[in-house]
Amino acid sequence: MDQLNFAGRVAVVTGAGGGLGKAYALLLGSRGAKVVVNDLGSARDGVGKSKFADLVVQEIKDKGGIAVADYNSVVEGEKIIKTALDNFGRVDILINNAGILRDKSFQKMSEQDWDLIQAVHLKGAYKTTQAAWETFKKQKYGRIIMTTSNAGLFGNFGQANYSAAKMGLVGLASTLAIEGAKYNIKVNTIVPTAASRLTEDILPPEMFQAMKPDLIAPVVAYMVHESFTDSGLIIDSTLGFATKTHLVRSQGAPLRKKPSDPVTIESVRDNWSQVVNMENAQRIEKIAEVTVDLVEKLQDFEERCKLDGQNESYWGKYKYNSKDLVCYALGVGASVVNPSDLKFLYESHESFSALPTFFILPGMLMESPVVGKAMPPGKYADFTNILHGEQYIEFLSDLPGTEGEFTVRNYVVDLLDKGSSAVAVVNSEIYQNKELVIRTQQHIFVLGQGGFGGPRNSKQAIAVEAVPKRSPDAVLEQRTAEDQAALYRLSGDLNPLHIDPNVATASGHPRPILHGLASLGFSARHVLMKYAGNDASNVKALKARFAKPVLPGQTLITEMWLEGKRVHFQTKLKETGNIVIASSYMDLKNVIKDGAPASNQKMAAPSASSLKSDSLFAKIEDGIKANPDKAKSVGAVYLYNITLNGKTVKQWTLDLKSALAVYQGEPKSGKADTTMTVSDDDLMEIAAGTLSPQVAYLKGRLKISGNIMLAQKLGPLLKSEAKL
Amino acid sequence: MDQLNFAGRVAVVTGAGGGLGKAYALLLGSRGAKVVVNDLGSARDGVGKSKFADLVVQEIKDKGGIAVADYNSVVEGEKIIKTALDNFGRVDILINNAGILRDKSFQKMSEQDWDLIQAVHLKGAYKTTQAAWETFKKQKYGRIIMTTSNAGLFGNFGQANYSAAKMGLVGLASTLAIEGAKYNIKVNTIVPTAASRLTEDILPPEMFQAMKPDLIAPVVAYMVHESFTDSGLIIDSTLGFATKTHLVRSQGAPLRKKPSDPVTIESVRDNWSQVVNMENAQRIEKIAEVTVDLVEKLQDFEERCKLDGQNESYWGKYKYNSKDLVCYALGVGASVVNPSDLKFLYESHESFSALPTFFILPGMLMESPVVGKAMPPGKYADFTNILHGEQYIEFLSDLPGTEGEFTVRNYVVDLLDKGSSAVAVVNSEIYQNKELVIRTQQHIFVLGQGGFGGPRNSKQAIAVEAVPKRSPDAVLEQRTAEDQAALYRLSGDLNPLHIDPNVATASGHPRPILHGLASLGFSARHVLMKYAGNDASNVKALKARFAKPVLPGQTLITEMWLEGKRVHFQTKLKETGNIVIASSYMDLKNVIKDGAPASNQKMAAPSASSLKSDSLFAKIEDGIKANPDKAKSVGAVYLYNITLNGKTVKQWTLDLKSALAVYQGEPKSGKADTTMTVSDDDLMEIAAGTLSPQVAYLKGRLKISGNIMLAQKLGPLLKSEAKL
Repeated sequence: MDQLNFAGRVAVVTGAGGGLGKAYALLLGSRGAKVVVNDLGSARDGVGKSKFADLVVQEIKDKGGIAVADYNSVVEGEKIIKTALDNFGRVDILINNAGILRDKSFQKMSEQDWDLIQAVHLKGAYKTTQAAWETFKKQKYGRIIMTTSNAGLFGNFGQANYSAAKMGLVGLASTLAIEGAKYNIKVNTIVPTAASRLTEDILPPEMFQAMKPDLIAPVVAYMVHESFTDSGLIIDSTLGFATKTHLVRSQGAPLRKKPSDPVTIESVRDNWSQVVNMENAQRIEKIAEVTVDLVEKLQDFEERCKLDGQNESYWGKYKYNSKDLVCYALGVGASVVNPSDLKFLYESHESFSALPTFFILPGMLMESPVVGKAMPPGKYADFTNILHGEQYIEFLSDLPGTEGEFTVRNYVVDLLDKGSSAVAVVNSEIYQNKELVIRTQQHIFVLGQGGFGGPRNSKQAIAVEAVPKRSPDAVLEQRTAEDQAALYRLSGDLNPLHIDPNVATASGHPRPILHGLASLGFSARHVLMKYAGNDASNVKALKARFAKPVLPGQTLITEMWLEGKRVHFQTKLKETGNIVIASSYMDLKNVIKDGAPASNQKMAAPSASSLKSDSLFAKIEDGIKANPDKAKSVGAVYLYNITLNGKTVKQWTLDLKSALAVYQGEPKSGKADTTMTVSDDDLMEIAAGTLSPQVAYLKGRLKISGNIMLAQKLGPLLKSEAKL
Repeated sequence: MDQLNFAGRVAVVTGAGGGLGKAYALLLGSRGAKVVVNDLGSARDGVGKSKFADLVVQEIKDKGGIAVADYNSVVEGEKIIKTALDNFGRVDILINNAGILRDKSFQKMSEQDWDLIQAVHLKGAYKTTQAAWETFKKQKYGRIIMTTSNAGLFGNFGQANYSAAKMGLVGLASTLAIEGAKYNIKVNTIVPTAASRLTEDILPPEMFQAMKPDLIAPVVAYMVHESFTDSGLIIDSTLGFATKTHLVRSQGAPLRKKPSDPVTIESVRDNWSQVVNMENAQRIEKIAEVTVDLVEKLQDFEERCKLDGQNESYWGKYKYNSKDLVCYALGVGASVVNPSDLKFLYESHESFSALPTFFILPGMLMESPVVGKAMPPGKYADFTNILHGEQYIEFLSDLPGTEGEFTVRNYVVDLLDKGSSAVAVVNSEIYQNKELVIRTQQHIFVLGQGGFGGPRNSKQAIAVEAVPKRSPDAVLEQRTAEDQAALYRLSGDLNPLHIDPNVATASGHPRPILHGLASLGFSARHVLMKYAGNDASNVKALKARFAKPVLPGQTLITEMWLEGKRVHFQTKLKETGNIVIASSYMDLKNVIKDGAPASNQKMAAPSASSLKSDSLFAKIEDGIKANPDKAKSVGAVYLYNITLNGKTVKQWTLDLKSALAVYQGEPKSGKADTTMTVSDDDLMEIAAGTLSPQVAYLKGRLKISGNIMLAQKLGPLLKSEAKL
């Protein structure tokens, strides 16, 4: 029996003599609710009493329902609620539907036009609702509907009074949803568009004819059913469609450069475009979030201003996902030909990880104007006269996960005068969840813009180190592909020097050259393979100098020298013998020499406190206990890696083979048959049925290793258990 | 002189005896406005008259300003406006700021608490505003501020009366913004958070102390300045920050399967998750858009239902951009080694285009459940038992542009019973702007799921055609890369069969195999090169059958036969001689034999009606006329390609060399020195200064060919002219 019914419930519908209200009353009456059919009762000519409510009551009764008519005005709402209590002994549902119109252009609107509309719509709803509120609180149950209008939400010519009242109801509903929460009183707002003059001119006639209240009534009925537990929603419905509306807020902007500056009309103007930029607008669910958000933004602003006080900074965001990592890895020559590279190329690999040099990219914020701004008067820098000279990266924390978002600060720490050219030393600080996780430093040559009398060297610059004089301890050779630069460009650096033959020629190259960072990616991979067990998390820092260009298709020879935990390296071209990457080094946490596989470290025991999916595994455990035979028939051991920001933060074992148990961590005995890696959020979506496991898998959001077929066996189980 | 001033303006500020209102009055007074300082005038104890307004007036006067006090209640708003007219002869600015609080939990709220709050906030603003409205209309100038609160926007415990009144003001402002539009009356709403009990408990004390009205007043002052032309905004400000809030609406959902179905409470429930899904929520600017949106959705719904009535369909969206095209082209073997391929690999190439086979991808909607759903009882299909058998694509319109969005319909037209296996014939219809532009058809083998007594053949299936028996007219050979599948996966098909050695082995392959569509991409490119001048727009249709798997690294040999405008082809493996793509053909619009470059067709004369950027070029023309010497100093001819959806729809020539002219179309004589390709929207952003040309260029949004240096010369000119 799938029908939603209202047996035992008493519903009050105001303005139910006709139209929408009548449709609500009839529908609720047909589904078992006892209905108070309220209607104002004055006929249209203002003389005598209409019998509209009586007719609706009769129609409900004719269909076997129970209803009573009420002719009180909503501004005496307490009388309407009394009708319910007197006749049925309770009240559970209140639909504030009564309404009238007094449309006038604003100048012509009389005070009476204003007052009457406020009284019927806003005060009426206040009165009826307040009259029912005590009962609702006592019985810990209530369902309330407010009726608003698109004229309220968006404004409408000639309806100043009406749009004010209708938006007022939205405000009232918001507060009542909050006050009613702990008493199971749900307050929602409907925006019903029925056939009206408003729509008559715009809609095709057949559509206008079709705007029947019957198409809206089921929406309202659903929203007052006991199974409906949302509150504070604004739902628009007409013609068998429904949409939800809510407010979102821009990220906004500070209105001054630093906290000690005054806010002026001019500083407001200068920051306005950012204030009204709705690009990353967010939903605020509760008023308290406004304050929390404000405190965070103020702290950020103050911290940034402190930093900016030292060096003028540019702040940006950098987002990446597993596809970006794979694309980058191919761009720097990782290959399936080398089995230990598969973990950089296959997002479902059990050790899937970023290459360490990938994290140089967030610091290359292309929109950053810091170099241009740092130039002295008369000198300039733009992409036509700059060259990447040196690169440094240092990991201050673990290697970041396989997807995530960084906040990046870019600033010039020193501008050096090298005679004919200038060199900007650009630092990037890369934050994740407010923690500084990576530092990078670029030396940017600005050709022909030296000679301004600046310092020649900088204490802040991280220096290269000459490689040892002995012959190298290890050498790796790899050919770049003809399309290496075309491929590396997909990682974001679209400078045409790397693809456009004309631009390359104009810059004095026989053909487009490979990105310096692409060559460095090769070299770093070579060091990683020879001395770090090809394990990206082994890298602490890297420093490199770009000495000469590489043409795609040329062969790179990386020469390496091990000194303690530092691997010095340089890279030569096989074709010319030229050193293209010079005086470079990589610092490692652990040296793992060539051939030795990376120590199969257990990953740092994940210890996330509570995750959303915890409840899911508790339910699965209950399900297994309730139905052990069904569980045992699966006959396999599953390991779930639950991730946040692309990092496993918790593991769950589902042993449906022998132990029939669900517990945190890896399998206590033996090995998982199937390992699934999925984010906490995605797992909840899969369990809720809003994300199909198959889609999740094919889109790389659910990663499965081991026996895939067994994962399929689990799918239905997981889902049905989750719905217990 | 950059200061914004209010000389000659008369401002009325209600509730200006202290707090925010006082700050507004002082600031406006200090910037030249004549100010009516309204304050209710009863002291806090209700006895006697306060002199707060007098004190504020004195403070304004002491600083050399002009002001007058007014002690009327806002519910007699006409008297306050009269004060302005009597004293200063006009009124330009009205800031509705007066307010009080009567916080009570809803049950305890007295009718007086309710009425008083409505009267002061809502009715007061109505009264003052209406009193000023006639003057504003007559003089065609007015600036109005309503004051709302986060308690109104988000609800707040104990403020049912206040949140209703405050949200009512938002509704009033929306309608007045509309009614005032043609009279230059701007109506905006401020959400000022000053220090209050609300914030006292939550904020750090020093932050609470810092919540000064002075930090908010400049925001309000900016919003009532004559230079401020937005209307209907809701702006939140405190502590030197500001944000904008507005409503957005979900895409919503139909509440039934087809128009002839009834809407029931249950059908509402079943569609609810889509109704409230805010993922692609959109801003509605005007109430009329609600109706337009509705009409469109209804038409879509009806059309889809008609189609679904024939075959149950799955509808999806597919978005792509130039990066996707380049990634795909590399995935199917396009290479910079072949100069005529550069146009598939370089987004700024003057002939940048998609490969035709790229447009097979939208039909491969991975989330589509149509094949699984089409299986007869007892049979199933999922990614573990399906194989791509055949592929067809047909272009019904021009080749789509280099970025865009499609709406895609997927449905199974026939399910064939081939004995041991089933074959689902899946059609995809690909729409752009409601026009059907591409059809594709896949034959999907469902292994081991035949034998259900279905038909063996389908009239709807597009058949392959055997290749001619003679030896091929042309042959092209190309080796795939070892990492070809790893690279092709970036185009979206993440099936592990193509990367995971274990999965490949389990499926009986020695190692991961190449995607059939990747091999087909190679073959289609070969035909394109040999017979279509490597011009993707030359392709009408393509049909192919996948006969055997290819391993990455193997060499493909495409054999071709020309018959009229049809090129028959098959593809063999060099290593084994096996035919991997069989009985295939490509239909061309024009046959262009090997070696002959694609006829340098003029592109179909773009003929977009009006674009946003039209006004920009008009302004540039004015600028050139106003300052011909400056223009001539540039000394170059520029061609702008203005795009919509990645297609050039209009061209503009800026001749700053000899003719000094701006006109539509290509240069009338000679060739452009620099060609810039940019979307209409991006060009407007560049001109407005919100997008830096350099960033646009480096992100591939502004494409430049020819002399890049000359483009830089133009940048500042374009910008300054646009600001004229």
